Amino acid sequence: MRVLGIDPGLRNLGWGVIEADGSRIRHIANGVCHSSGDSLALRLLSLHDQLLDLCHRYEPDQAAVEHTFVNKDGAGTLKLGQARGVALLVPAKYGIEVGEYAPNNVKKTIVGVGHADKKQVQHMVCLQLPGVKLAGPDAADALAIALCHYHTAGRGPQQLRIKAS
Amino acid sequence: MRVLGIDPGLRNLGWGVIEADGSRIRHIANGVCHSSGDSLALRLLSLHDQLLDLCHRYEPDQAAVEHTFVNKDGAGTLKLGQARGVALLVPAKYGIEVGEYAPNNVKKTIVGVGHADKKQVQHMVCLQLPGVKLAGPDAADALAIALCHYHTAGRGPQQLRIKAS
Repeated sequence: MRVLGIDPGLRNLGWGVIEADGSRIRHIANGVCHSSGDSLALRLLSLHDQLLDLCHRYEPDQAAVEHTFVNKDGAGTLKLGQARGVALLVPAKYGIEVGEYAPNNVKKTIVGVGHADKKQVQHMVCLQLPGVKLAGPDAADALAIALCHYHTAGRGPQQLRIKAS
Repeated sequence: MRVLGIDPGLRNLGWGVIEADGSRIRHIANGVCHSSGDSLALRLLSLHDQLLDLCHRYEPDQAAVEHTFVNKDGAGTLKLGQARGVALLVPAKYGIEVGEYAPNNVKKTIVGVGHADKKQVQHMVCLQLPGVKLAGPDAADALAIALCHYHTAGRGPQQLRIKAS
């Protein structure tokens, strides 16, 4: 099973691909898409094109997208929502299922606690995917989302949660 | 010039197409797209496919999307943001420019005041587009956005604002 994890964002959209075969998980690729364009519509189009290109390049079987954190900053939530709309759309368009996970669920699955900080998450991502070179914190989050999907989808060995607790 | 106006929404997405030639404006079509699917990703994909189909069917030269109203309901703002992301993306993908207008700007342009109610907007839309049959309030809003784009883009005769004041 190949999973594409996506950490949505309008400026920086993190992505990571893992491959799992039974209890073996390996890192395929990770990176960050940056939106470009003079208008919001063109920036969303640039994210759309990059994500679709990733789907064709890495041929994932499933995708997982982080549930955007809703806060009091309505304008910020709207921006994230727009990027998230594209992040959910592209894998669906490519024809694969898209799981959604709240940040706390991702952390709980990867680190064992819902309030873990980013460094802990990165540490566990590197432990699960030996030799991985992270393209940045957004890419690390995307790999964590992909791992979370693999483990919570019931196909994983669930060792991560045991290790981390 | 043919303008596609879009009033974004996840459940009901209003759309309207007008054609303008100098001071002559006529109604082409209007309607509402309803999203369907078991997941949010599939609902967004269904909106995407319907909007892209509208672009191919009516071949607009320009598009205009209403700026989503940001309120205290973060979850609602996020949902709208996701639908809005798709509404902005599709015309950009089709290769046309996408204008964005705040609801108050649309009302001010169409009715003459920023705080006009929906009935006033519908009345002025019907006055500007004789014989139009509105598919509902969301479709009326979408036509108002298309008209607003035509008038504020500097190509219109600006009569609407004078009439309404």
